[in-house]
Amino acid sequence: ARRGYPEAVLCEPKSVEQVALIAAEVAAAGTPTLFTRATPEQAAAVLAALSDAHHDPVARVVAWPAAAPEPTGGLVVVVSAGTSDLPVAREAELTARYLGRRTQLVVDVGVAGLHRVLGHLDLLRSARVVVVAAGMDGALPSVVAGLVSAPVVAVPTSVGYGAAFGGVAPLLSMLNACAPGVAVVNIDNGYGGGHLAAQIASS
Amino acid sequence: ARRGYPEAVLCEPKSVEQVALIAAEVAAAGTPTLFTRATPEQAAAVLAALSDAHHDPVARVVAWPAAAPEPTGGLVVVVSAGTSDLPVAREAELTARYLGRRTQLVVDVGVAGLHRVLGHLDLLRSARVVVVAAGMDGALPSVVAGLVSAPVVAVPTSVGYGAAFGGVAPLLSMLNACAPGVAVVNIDNGYGGGHLAAQIASS
Amino acid sequence: ARRGYPEAVLCEPKSVEQVALIAAEVAAAGTPTLFTRATPEQAAAVLAALSDAHHDPVARVVAWPAAAPEPTGGLVVVVSAGTSDLPVAREAELTARYLGRRTQLVVDVGVAGLHRVLGHLDLLRSARVVVVAAGMDGALPSVVAGLVSAPVVAVPTSVGYGAAFGGVAPLLSMLNACAPGVAVVNIDNGYGGGHLAAQIASS
Amino acid sequence: ARRGYPEAVLCEPKSVEQVALIAAEVAAAGTPTLFTRATPEQAAAVLAALSDAHHDPVARVVAWPAAAPEPTGGLVVVVSAGTSDLPVAREAELTARYLGRRTQLVVDVGVAGLHRVLGHLDLLRSARVVVVAAGMDGALPSVVAGLVSAPVVAVPTSVGYGAAFGGVAPLLSMLNACAPGVAVVNIDNGYGGGHLAAQIASS
Amino acid sequence: ARRGYPEAVLCEPKSVEQVALIAAEVAAAGTPTLFTRATPEQAAAVLAALSDAHHDPVARVVAWPAAAPEPTGGLVVVVSAGTSDLPVAREAELTARYLGRRTQLVVDVGVAGLHRVLGHLDLLRSARVVVVAAGMDGALPSVVAGLVSAPVVAVPTSVGYGAAFGGVAPLLSMLNACAPGVAVVNIDNGYGGGHLAAQIASS
Amino acid sequence: ARRGYPEAVLCEPKSVEQVALIAAEVAAAGTPTLFTRATPEQAAAVLAALSDAHHDPVARVVAWPAAAPEPTGGLVVVVSAGTSDLPVAREAELTARYLGRRTQLVVDVGVAGLHRVLGHLDLLRSARVVVVAAGMDGALPSVVAGLVSAPVVAVPTSVGYGAAFGGVAPLLSMLNACAPGVAVVNIDNGYGGGHLAAQIASS
Amino acid sequence: ARRGYPEAVLCEPKSVEQVALIAAEVAAAGTPTLFTRATPEQAAAVLAALSDAHHDPVARVVAWPAAAPEPTGGLVVVVSAGTSDLPVAREAELTARYLGRRTQLVVDVGVAGLHRVLGHLDLLRSARVVVVAAGMDGALPSVVAGLVSAPVVAVPTSVGYGAAFGGVAPLLSMLNACAPGVAVVNIDNGYGGGHLAAQIASS
Amino acid sequence: ARRGYPEAVLCEPKSVEQVALIAAEVAAAGTPTLFTRATPEQAAAVLAALSDAHHDPVARVVAWPAAAPEPTGGLVVVVSAGTSDLPVAREAELTARYLGRRTQLVVDVGVAGLHRVLGHLDLLRSARVVVVAAGMDGALPSVVAGLVSAPVVAVPTSVGYGAAFGGVAPLLSMLNACAPGVAVVNIDNGYGGGHLAAQIASS
Ligand SMILES: Nc1ncnc2c1ncn2[C@@H]1O[C@H](COP(=O)(O)O)[C@@H](O)[C@H]1O
Ligand SMILES: Nc1ncnc2c1ncn2[C@@H]1O[C@H](COP(=O)(O)O)[C@@H](O)[C@H]1O
Ligand SMILES: Nc1ncnc2c1ncn2[C@@H]1O[C@H](COP(=O)(O)O)[C@@H](O)[C@H]1O
Ligand SMILES: Nc1ncnc2c1ncn2[C@@H]1O[C@H](COP(=O)(O)O)[C@@H](O)[C@H]1O
Ligand SMILES: [Mg+2]
Ligand SMILES: [Mg+2]
Ligand SMILES: [Mg+2]
Ligand SMILES: [Mg+2]
Ligand SMILES: [Mg+2]
Ligand SMILES: [Mg+2]
Ligand SMILES: [Mg+2]
Ligand SMILES: [Mg+2]
Repeated sequence: ARRGYPEAVLCEPKSVEQVALIAAEVAAAGTPTLFTRATPEQAAAVLAALSDAHHDPVARVVAWPAAAPEPTGGLVVVVSAGTSDLPVAREAELTARYLGRRTQLVVDVGVAGLHRVLGHLDLLRSARVVVVAAGMDGALPSVVAGLVSAPVVAVPTSVGYGAAFGGVAPLLSMLNACAPGVAVVNIDNGYGGGHLAAQIASS
Repeated sequence: ARRGYPEAVLCEPKSVEQVALIAAEVAAAGTPTLFTRATPEQAAAVLAALSDAHHDPVARVVAWPAAAPEPTGGLVVVVSAGTSDLPVAREAELTARYLGRRTQLVVDVGVAGLHRVLGHLDLLRSARVVVVAAGMDGALPSVVAGLVSAPVVAVPTSVGYGAAFGGVAPLLSMLNACAPGVAVVNIDNGYGGGHLAAQIASS
Repeated sequence: ARRGYPEAVLCEPKSVEQVALIAAEVAAAGTPTLFTRATPEQAAAVLAALSDAHHDPVARVVAWPAAAPEPTGGLVVVVSAGTSDLPVAREAELTARYLGRRTQLVVDVGVAGLHRVLGHLDLLRSARVVVVAAGMDGALPSVVAGLVSAPVVAVPTSVGYGAAFGGVAPLLSMLNACAPGVAVVNIDNGYGGGHLAAQIASS
Repeated sequence: ARRGYPEAVLCEPKSVEQVALIAAEVAAAGTPTLFTRATPEQAAAVLAALSDAHHDPVARVVAWPAAAPEPTGGLVVVVSAGTSDLPVAREAELTARYLGRRTQLVVDVGVAGLHRVLGHLDLLRSARVVVVAAGMDGALPSVVAGLVSAPVVAVPTSVGYGAAFGGVAPLLSMLNACAPGVAVVNIDNGYGGGHLAAQIASS
Repeated sequence: ARRGYPEAVLCEPKSVEQVALIAAEVAAAGTPTLFTRATPEQAAAVLAALSDAHHDPVARVVAWPAAAPEPTGGLVVVVSAGTSDLPVAREAELTARYLGRRTQLVVDVGVAGLHRVLGHLDLLRSARVVVVAAGMDGALPSVVAGLVSAPVVAVPTSVGYGAAFGGVAPLLSMLNACAPGVAVVNIDNGYGGGHLAAQIASS
Repeated sequence: ARRGYPEAVLCEPKSVEQVALIAAEVAAAGTPTLFTRATPEQAAAVLAALSDAHHDPVARVVAWPAAAPEPTGGLVVVVSAGTSDLPVAREAELTARYLGRRTQLVVDVGVAGLHRVLGHLDLLRSARVVVVAAGMDGALPSVVAGLVSAPVVAVPTSVGYGAAFGGVAPLLSMLNACAPGVAVVNIDNGYGGGHLAAQIASS
Repeated sequence: ARRGYPEAVLCEPKSVEQVALIAAEVAAAGTPTLFTRATPEQAAAVLAALSDAHHDPVARVVAWPAAAPEPTGGLVVVVSAGTSDLPVAREAELTARYLGRRTQLVVDVGVAGLHRVLGHLDLLRSARVVVVAAGMDGALPSVVAGLVSAPVVAVPTSVGYGAAFGGVAPLLSMLNACAPGVAVVNIDNGYGGGHLAAQIASS
Repeated sequence: ARRGYPEAVLCEPKSVEQVALIAAEVAAAGTPTLFTRATPEQAAAVLAALSDAHHDPVARVVAWPAAAPEPTGGLVVVVSAGTSDLPVAREAELTARYLGRRTQLVVDVGVAGLHRVLGHLDLLRSARVVVVAAGMDGALPSVVAGLVSAPVVAVPTSVGYGAAFGGVAPLLSMLNACAPGVAVVNIDNGYGGGHLAAQIASS
């Protein structure tokens, strides 16, 4: 494992055969591994080789071994702006958990309904780091970063259409967040956001 | 005047001579006119021909006649996210006022300090239309549109640097506002935003 | 419902199961709701839970309850530049109607045939707000805004190919409309355009 | 001269010394030449070598010899959407004239005031080709092409700000003109537009 | 028909049903019509209503009536840079022919093999206008425009991959052609290129 | 101060007068403050009001009070890829120091000379967080993130020309870093990078 | 064959029928030919006409004749940053080999694991030219060019998602490589990269 | 010097003081060095420390020592498409010469005048590598690569305006060259093009 964390295999650009081969190698070597962005077929290929792995179809993640390590470090709170951002948020949460952090997921707290954000203020302020997944206007990380003193990891999502440009709109919004303390990762990169959060919350 | 409103002259792409000529024509014809995006030199040329005009150097507007019409219709509230957005916000406010609306300006209520937005909730809810000028993440219109039932006119500004791309970041953010009821105009187009607001608030 | 208007559910990024679940909740709670950008499968799932809902397959909208509220406020005229812009125009019209406005739809009045625009001048001038859906060159809102004193809500559509860039060409054209009074919303956002129009025409 | 037309020298990227050198060569060789996009300093350098040349400071063109050839072929009508588009329109007109065509210039006929376009209908319909210079929304070529059966040469200009993106907005608009028969050239390329028009109107 | 030319129906964004309806109207009214960008299904629907129409599957055009008018005006030469640009080139050729021009098509004369271009020099120089369809580097119109004194209509195609960006690379190349006399139309717009050529070659 | 950290004033979009006014308020209120992106004139205006402030002309920062707080938390290592990235790197370092962290700056360790990176491996591995400022190819954060297990804050700079597009090239490179654990901030945003690093290294 | 090298046929934009026709012509003429970017169906069509051709399904190349020429010139080393870049790397390797060079392929040596790059240093330094295929951050060519004195041919790949923008991120990164000696070709253009490498290594 | 070649100092983003400091270090260490993209002030600072250096103001290069090494390897031919591309072409030529190659420069051979290209065919075919600097349509490398079997290094320049987008148009054109064997470097990067050419022509 790279630097003490589980290995990760990005399944998307690989064939089912390649993924099956890698899963067989993981089984042989016994390396803790996360398979990310796995299609149902790719996930099945992993489970064929690693039958006791954990598959989360929403997050499109297969984790082996199924049990996450005993958590250490600080709390990672993951916030999903809309229900459509859930897959990305869940991928972030699972990644942080399998890297050894306690996590908590909060769904559907977009800025169009501020009371929902404000209703979670205590939880947000108890976090060592907050991960925010948001598409469309990408406005939530600015709002959250203004409410907490912990760093905020912003994950733009491709949710939206037209001038959302597949996540470019929230990406730019997050890079220009008017509150400091916002760390941006690639569009739809729940894995990267969760990994970064786990590193931040390591102590 | 087009459709009962004062004429407007966009000074920026014109020479000082051209602006002076137009001002002389306005003086001769007696047409109520707004000179927008005027440099100090252009403003001086207008005042030379129309000595009783009103010049607002922050908004870069010269209005003639100096007195706005007696206000009719609903209230136009103009919100400036940061102090750097003030020129655009002020241009919007002046335009709405010279088109015959009551206006109120609120400055420095960015989303990084939500309490400042929430502190103006009563005023915002009393408006027939709210104009919001914001640069950088352009997140404020989404937040305001979620708090009021009046339409929100969003004016992206070129305030920011790097990946703000001269106002593209807030423009995209506003076009993808997750609350409905947001009308977007061109970057730095305070005149257009104020004009639209005046039309909306005509009754 | 947010601010007195029906709720809206953006179906596109949701699974059929998620849409069915939401429809069941709507049925239980009795909340007036618009389901937008619904595929035939998603629409069927809504109708299974809300059998008396109204489904408009062209606009891809399912509305519940089927009857729009008794109209109040001013007239919303919706203009479709070409027949290919009709789905977006119809989505705007339905949204405005279910938010409580009187609406009128005019189809195929592109600027290449000015006489068709001019033939509807009386209707256009009787509107409290005009919604214009147009793709390709997006020139129609400029022309209409020059003819009426009401605000114009411009909805760029993704109709076109090549350098239309999925609606970017008309979007930019509309943001730069040479007549003032043009409010722009996201590409293909008929819902947003209709919602904004209903808010503007509320009085 | 290439293909029977005068040579053209694009001054902009050249130093004053380089332009002076070329002008001296022109004087020696006696080749009819257009110097385009000339700064006042570059124009002065040309006039020092070719004292009987014609300098049009608005068009930024210096033409030698000063007299245009006796016109042949059809009429080239050049339309400037706004007064700020005049330099580009004038460059087009001069180019067509020095390539041997009769020309007529019409200024300030933007689509926001349709009656002004329609007021020139007879002139427009008498042209063998119409050149239209327009910035901002670039809507005028679509309208003109719908009114005449001659080809329309559309020259987007960099007039505008914000999302005009230095002429990209009218460029895209013109490439997507909903009326056929629109030939597009580069942003601010009055020379190219006039040259093309002269070639079209050669018979 | 607009301005004496056949009507054109852009099939692409329309349903098969809509196209069938329009074809039936064409049959009833007897209006000469070109159906462009027609899928096989759309073409079949047209032929069902207009059984004596001419269908060119490569150009994706259905023309009714099948016989082009007796040609008048000058010669239109259409050049296809590569064999993959043929559909666009053929669409341009057919359009010009059905608008009443004599046409000649030359295929596979890309700039990487200059001798092939130079081998057609006499034909190219006999044209009243040359249409060039080219993808990838879009270099051919510059080369052709340097060889002939007639205007060149450049049609960028979406042939290519990667940094061709769906035709943007040749589009920009053509807009910046270093030889004057190049008229650019939209990416893949063979119809528009042929229409413009027919108008240019009308005399 | 927001959340226990000093206030920050972005000087760039403000006039010298506005900056002077704010400095006077800071002097009156005694709030620890960082003035960032200050021109020499703006810096002078701050020093006029706060004569005992610390001015770093390379970083373009004025800090008041001059003494940074006693450091707590982990070590922040700041890496400048080239000497031209130094202003941004130094702004990041100063920000982290004035937010209360120990910092260390390493200059000129671009990936074209790997031995220079590898020569600092012990220092890099002793950091709680590494800030990397890099322009041009933006490759350094990927390399560093592969060498350390701490999070890496990547600050793209506008150093470069042509297809560097003012920092877009390194920005995209960093968002796509092939090693996980890279947090990206806006182009040239040394302040944001240092602030984020200080929050991460708070424990 | 162009300039002594085999002909190449880009299959992607051609129909299976067109490819079959070309293969038949190749069989008749006996011209050594590479069919690139061939789908399985296109490859089958080639093999039907040229049964003794060599098909590499990973590289999507069909080569005829199957035997590469006896190698001359220097060694071409091809490096694939990740396993997902293999198809492009393999296409480059095959092209260089069929143009008459000795080749060696090294897979999965991304910059996130520097030891893997450094482990191949002797091989890299023995090459006359190194081809590097990389997606995502595109950082590998900069690192390799800093380690060897031979030219580096950089082939950006479309591997990645979100802000990789289909290969734009590595393309820009490579164009801005901070080590000199990097030659860039189009995204996914393994053929072009291999061809260029073979020309460089001809002596 | 890195890998046996002279060091290079990119002056542009450095202050005159920084450049002077580096020149003093060069003088002390006796390292052969190229100072590139030097303003007149920066060049003067270099000459103050290295009075016997060679300064080429067109190329904006200062080379020390003034004498280039005795040439080895093959011939580097540098082609400038227009006179405005000369600075970039000359920077490439000087770089190749100071890296130890024989060079020859050919100016003003754009594709609009093919006879000029063809007139240099023998010289072009005698080169081990051809460097082509071109702006606007960037068509020349495609044409040259079709005429010679040596590799072509294409350097896009920022010459042009409007949709040339500061060199993006020729950059894309060159990346999509329809002849193989074209190596692309950054916009205006004469240094990089000359360096690459010298490495290619080393044998
Ligand atoms: N077609 C649409 N386009 C844009 N926004 C929409 C659309 N339909 C619904 N919405 C917005 O999206 C919100 C619902 O999002 P969700 O809860 O994810 O279904 C609604 O409150 C509307 O503001
Ligand atoms: N304003 C202009 N815009 C675009 N191209 C021009 C312009 N003026 C001249 N040209 C073209 O540039 C060529 C001259 O380029 P040059 O030799 O660099 O001055 C002429 O032959 C024209 O084709
Ligand atoms: N292939 C095409 N590309 C661009 N415009 C076209 C094309 N075919 C038809 N048109 C234009 O689109 C108009 C018809 O649009 P519609 O009424 O939506 O079919 C015609 O009048 C033409 O001006
Ligand atoms: N004109 C140039 N364009 C691009 N890169 C250059 C240029 N001149 C020098 N370089 C590269 O930049 C490095 C020097 O950067 P620096 O140490 O910041 O001066 C050199 O080693 C070259 O690789
Ligand atoms: Mg915070
Ligand atoms: Mg609201
Ligand atoms: Mg109006
Ligand atoms: Mg017409
Ligand atoms: Mg020509
Ligand atoms: Mg790491
Ligand atoms: Mg090297
Ligand atoms: Mg070649």
